[in-house]
Parts: sequence; structure tokens; C-alpha cells
Amino acid sequence: MTIFERVIEFSTTKELEIVDITDYVKEAVEDSGIKDGICLVFVPGATGAVILNENDSSLLEDLKNILNDLIPQEKEYEHPINARSHLRAILLGNNQCISIKNGKLELGTWQQIMFINLDTRARKRKVIIKIIGD
Amino acid sequence: MTIFERVIEFSTTKELEIVDITDYVKEAVEDSGIKDGICLVFVPGATGAVILNENDSSLLEDLKNILNDLIPQEKEYEHPINARSHLRAILLGNNQCISIKNGKLELGTWQQIMFINLDTRARKRKVIIKIIGD
Amino acid sequence: MTIFERVIEFSTTKELEIVDITDYVKEAVEDSGIKDGICLVFVPGATGAVILNENDSSLLEDLKNILNDLIPQEKEYEHPINARSHLRAILLGNNQCISIKNGKLELGTWQQIMFINLDTRARKRKVIIKIIGD
Repeated sequence: MTIFERVIEFSTTKELEIVDITDYVKEAVEDSGIKDGICLVFVPGATGAVILNENDSSLLEDLKNILNDLIPQEKEYEHPINARSHLRAILLGNNQCISIKNGKLELGTWQQIMFINLDTRARKRKVIIKIIGD
Repeated sequence: MTIFERVIEFSTTKELEIVDITDYVKEAVEDSGIKDGICLVFVPGATGAVILNENDSSLLEDLKNILNDLIPQEKEYEHPINARSHLRAILLGNNQCISIKNGKLELGTWQQIMFINLDTRARKRKVIIKIIGD
Repeated sequence: MTIFERVIEFSTTKELEIVDITDYVKEAVEDSGIKDGICLVFVPGATGAVILNENDSSLLEDLKNILNDLIPQEKEYEHPINARSHLRAILLGNNQCISIKNGKLELGTWQQIMFINLDTRARKRKVIIKIIGD
């Protein structure tokens, strides 16, 4: 049994910027040499999210719109400045587990791994990829 | 340490069909021989979800209604046809981890494992059960 | 490879009571002796949730308000009494995985582990901390 960790770092320049990190996670799985196991994708922060869905520009527009319908930018919040960022992060989640078999992530065809910057400003971001298996 | 995988396959005939897969996951845990560990239930697809909650028909009606309140069927979306399916899947999540002890899933009494077909049409579905432990 | 489990138990006295369990999870990680791995925080029940976000009183007020905006207390539900509790639990999720390195949870600075009692009444609560690693 092996445990492997890779931290990826990147900059996001604006609110609701979405970064497809699938290739980085695939590369980590390859580099780990793990053929069979579980891959955790974890965001160490309170205003970022990670989702597993289709990287399609029209769908991502819909996602941004629905996030604003559910947790509006215009609403008054108690928490200063970026309450909506935190609340949207809670809703979407910041950790996802993916099965690995034959050295590959068992993602569906239309299922990519995407980081979403929910903060109201540009941020340097870190995502932890943790793999456990044989 | 052992890693065990089982893929279950089934058909869903309509949107918002909910399939209780608890018994299949329990069977996989038994067959794995793993007494202590973690069980990942993973949907390899972008329009299915898996939840851990009570399999009660009235509650599931409420769930369907609230999904339509939050992400309405009637709304205009950019993504063609099944945007709502994707968005609801993102909201509910498509991977859940459950603790195993003494060879059993440590679920609460009113906590079942349910797959939800969020797509707008009948679909063949696959769920991956991945167990890691001793 | 080691597997470690700790169950923490506590009472919640009212709906939407939020309990910061970060220190208990940190203590479990220390006691496990595991330096590198994954920590699963799992709620064995259908009306509790666990989130990873900032323990700030104003933000938690916002969270309570938004939960009531999304899944209102005043709405009519099919499921008797505590439908909203179940639905909110489904939305927030009841299991979270956190990476461990150098014997520490790799949480962000503003990221605490919080249990939320979503039931409509006082409840005794149990949270399972399951750690797997080296």
C-alpha cells in the first residue's frame, strides 16, 4: 500500500473563475504508480470548491447563474465582504473522492475535475491530491 | 490492507428515479472480507448523484420538489436539454464515503444509500463501490 | 498502513446548533500516530451534516439564513415533522475527507470542521472519525 501526495498551485484572477485540473490529477495518479485505490482531491480553504462534472462552457455559465440564484451577490449578509463565497463553497463542497483502477481515474466521459474560485477577488490557490492504494 | 472494487449496473427509466443501492453496497463489503476501513460509493457520470439519507417515499417526494424549486425544470439554461440534470448532480454530489467497522457499514438507522438519476431520459447506470481496509 | 477509528459523542440542544469538532478530529489524528493519509469525518444519521468552513459567528448566521431561504421551515412537506432537516442534510453532506501530512490535517487557516444539527429537536449525536494511512 502506498500513499502519494501532490500539491498543485495556480492563480485565479476573478470570482467564479473555473479551472479544469483533470490533467494535473491524472498526472499525479500516473506519477504515484498506484494502480488500484482512491484519489482525494482536497481544497485547503473556505472559498474554493471542487466539482466533478462536465467542462462545457454553456453548462459552466448555467452553474454561475444558478449559484447566484441560490446565494445571491445582492443579498445582505452578516459576514463582511465575501459571505457568498463561503456559502457557495459549503454548497458545492471542497473535497471529492474518485476511484482508481488499472492506473486510471474511473471518471465518466463527461466528468472533469474542476476547481471554482468563489472568493470575490484574485487568489493564489492550492489543491491537494492525495492518493492511497496499491 | 486490501482494496476491493465492485461495479454495479442497473437501468433507470426516467428522470428523478431513485434506486436504493444499500443492499448492493452491504454485499460488496461482505464479499470484500474487509472488517475495518472506508467504502467509497462513486458515480462515474455527470447526471447521476448518490446520497445517504432516509429511504422514505414522502421524503423522496419532498426531495424531488425541492430540487425543482432550487434548479427548476422550467428555467432557461444555456446548456442544451439537460442542464438541470448536471446542476442538480453538482448540488447533491456523486461520491460518498462511509466508515466500515466489524465488517459493517456504520450507517445510521435511517440512512440508506440511494442513487438518483437526474438525467432527462432513461439511462443505463453504473456505480463503483471501492473499499479499502483490513 | 494503519486504520484508526474514534467515535465522538455530544448533545445538541436545538435546531441549527453548530458544534466545532476540529479539536476532536485533530486529537484523533495525533492519537492515531498516522503521519500521512486520509481522515474521513462521517455522520451516521440523516439529519446531521458536517462542513469544512470558517467558524465565524456572522458567517454561521448567514448559513442558517440561507438554509432557510433554500429549504424553508414554513414550506409544506410530505414527510412529517422534520423533512427540512433531511433535505438540508442532503444539501450540505454528511461526510468529508481531509488530507493528513506530517501528522496534521491539511486544513486551510479559515477552515474548521463543524457539525450541524439539522433536526428539529435536541439530539444526542455521534460523529465517526476514521483515519487510514502510515
